[in-house]
Amino acid sequence: MTPHRSVETLRWVGDQNGHLVIIDQTRLPTQVVEIELRDVEAVWEAIRSLRVRGAPAIGIAAAYGVVLGLQESGEDEADVWARLDAVTAWLATSRPTAVNLCWALQRLQEVALGHRGQGPASLRAALLTAARALHEEDRDICRAIGRHGGPLLADGSGVLTHCNAGGLATADYGTALAVIFAAHEAGRHLQVYVDETRPLLQGARLTVWELQQRGIDVTLICDSTAAQVMRERRVQAVITGADRIAANGDVANKIGTYQVALAAAAHELPFYVAAPTSTFDLSLASGEQIPIEQRDPAEITHGFGRQIAPEGTAVYNPAFDVTPARLIRAIVCEKGVIQPVTQASIAQCLNPSSATS
Amino acid sequence: MTPHRSVETLRWVGDQNGHLVIIDQTRLPTQVVEIELRDVEAVWEAIRSLRVRGAPAIGIAAAYGVVLGLQESGEDEADVWARLDAVTAWLATSRPTAVNLCWALQRLQEVALGHRGQGPASLRAALLTAARALHEEDRDICRAIGRHGGPLLADGSGVLTHCNAGGLATADYGTALAVIFAAHEAGRHLQVYVDETRPLLQGARLTVWELQQRGIDVTLICDSTAAQVMRERRVQAVITGADRIAANGDVANKIGTYQVALAAAAHELPFYVAAPTSTFDLSLASGEQIPIEQRDPAEITHGFGRQIAPEGTAVYNPAFDVTPARLIRAIVCEKGVIQPVTQASIAQCLNPSSATS
Repeated sequence: MTPHRSVETLRWVGDQNGHLVIIDQTRLPTQVVEIELRDVEAVWEAIRSLRVRGAPAIGIAAAYGVVLGLQESGEDEADVWARLDAVTAWLATSRPTAVNLCWALQRLQEVALGHRGQGPASLRAALLTAARALHEEDRDICRAIGRHGGPLLADGSGVLTHCNAGGLATADYGTALAVIFAAHEAGRHLQVYVDETRPLLQGARLTVWELQQRGIDVTLICDSTAAQVMRERRVQAVITGADRIAANGDVANKIGTYQVALAAAAHELPFYVAAPTSTFDLSLASGEQIPIEQRDPAEITHGFGRQIAPEGTAVYNPAFDVTPARLIRAIVCEKGVIQPVTQASIAQCLNPSSATS
Repeated sequence: MTPHRSVETLRWVGDQNGHLVIIDQTRLPTQVVEIELRDVEAVWEAIRSLRVRGAPAIGIAAAYGVVLGLQESGEDEADVWARLDAVTAWLATSRPTAVNLCWALQRLQEVALGHRGQGPASLRAALLTAARALHEEDRDICRAIGRHGGPLLADGSGVLTHCNAGGLATADYGTALAVIFAAHEAGRHLQVYVDETRPLLQGARLTVWELQQRGIDVTLICDSTAAQVMRERRVQAVITGADRIAANGDVANKIGTYQVALAAAAHELPFYVAAPTSTFDLSLASGEQIPIEQRDPAEITHGFGRQIAPEGTAVYNPAFDVTPARLIRAIVCEKGVIQPVTQASIAQCLNPSSATS
């Protein structure tokens, strides 16, 4: 296993006429390949195809996508604004569940509004600056999540995680994995069990890879083995990322998260979620309102380069599920640890002044 | 989808010098291939490699394996008996969890004892007769399971199953699927959700195929989607097979069954198990004593002709788990429906005279 720490999840090359470079995550772990995204169509495709994935990372990719989308937009201010609206609206359709995508696009639109009337060149420069800031900020957020969450994991304990909420899902360092990394860096020995995470195997392909690179003990299991691992007392805690969190604390995350949370509850194990505050969508009262992406049946029936189900098999392939707040012991964000998980505690953490007024 | 109803899970061709023919289940559903097993080594390999699998079917295969193992054993009675002991002991090592394997081998040994002193030719003929009887009996048992269990599934309801407990796991007709088939034949419309069942995908490859052949509505899901399907009220019951059932009703079955049972309990859905009485092992007080087969890590890391985890990944790959009796609403066997599932009700069903004495 050669370490690839020099490869970044995403990086922008050049000025506002530059381009985005990402690791093509669909080719990990057997191939570490960077690809160049030189127009907004390529960014949209990369997000849709999960070449770049993870709620924070797709927010950053989309922000750079806006920059790419305006490169050829000319010098007519009205044209540029029309193009900005079109590009952001279109990027928002690449994946529906992760709210960080919309959050990042909205942030760039706000920056644009602040530069209205200053000319297209100024606007394009400002958007790149904003995308870079969002990217840089995510690094700090991930470190803060690690700092707040690390103490939740005891020395010598086993931890189970699902999907990939690591450096590959963010600017770097991750959300759920940031908590594991921080505990590891603090000298605590952990045994991490990773669900392979069908259908696209982000756990097997990405999370195992990231943990190996950092020298953390990792064991791969099938998704269906999680409850057995708990029953055998091999793990003492579960931690996952999130794609969207409703105002009441219900969490949308990779399909299978809910099942793991139920198993954790049955074994009286703490189930933690780690996510930046940009993952909260306070406009939704509960998880029932979170849109759930339905994906191609072929991800299941032909997922390993080989047909594994009969022709014409009907498939139900939701990409996410919703874990109710009552199953979540705490949510770790860059501002701290939200515990218990309630509408009030979330509001208090996200906006302390308004919540106490 | 061409129906292949003429293909049998197992069939014996010829007299005691004949051979066994099985469907190679590792090649389903894309290829329907029969293979000939002409010696006991081939039977052992076919069981170990899951070319023939499912607790009742491997019992039948092992019985025929004994017949094959004695074909070249000569005319010296002592040699034949030594060979019988060696063959049965060796076949028992092919897979450790399903007790039907040992049960079938034991039954053949009892038949052999009844023919002691009658000469090798008579013994070989008697063993083939016993293997054929066991095979034929399994057909009747499966139909009886269907008859007893069918009424548990209501018209218009959704049913979830895990792994394959169908005709391919038995002489024909199945155990868990027998219940579904019988309900379907009684005119009740069912929507069946099938867990793909990693790592070897018996659900995707075998169960979907069997349900399609009978014209039953079937939807394939990832194992991690089972709880979500329950949450959405798409299913009203769960039914699986079993590989070994302890005296107290704890059930060993394909890895992931326990997780599904926990999810069913959380959604207050009935979880049923269907299995012949040969699956009960009353010598074990509880499921904790059931030996659990550990299988090759490559089933997870390289399962579909493609490497899906980094080199050197540590893997935990138990083939089975144990679902405690408290999570099981009823066990359907050929003698009837055991409900509630307790040591007393099991003893009463399996041996009514001794239990009431």
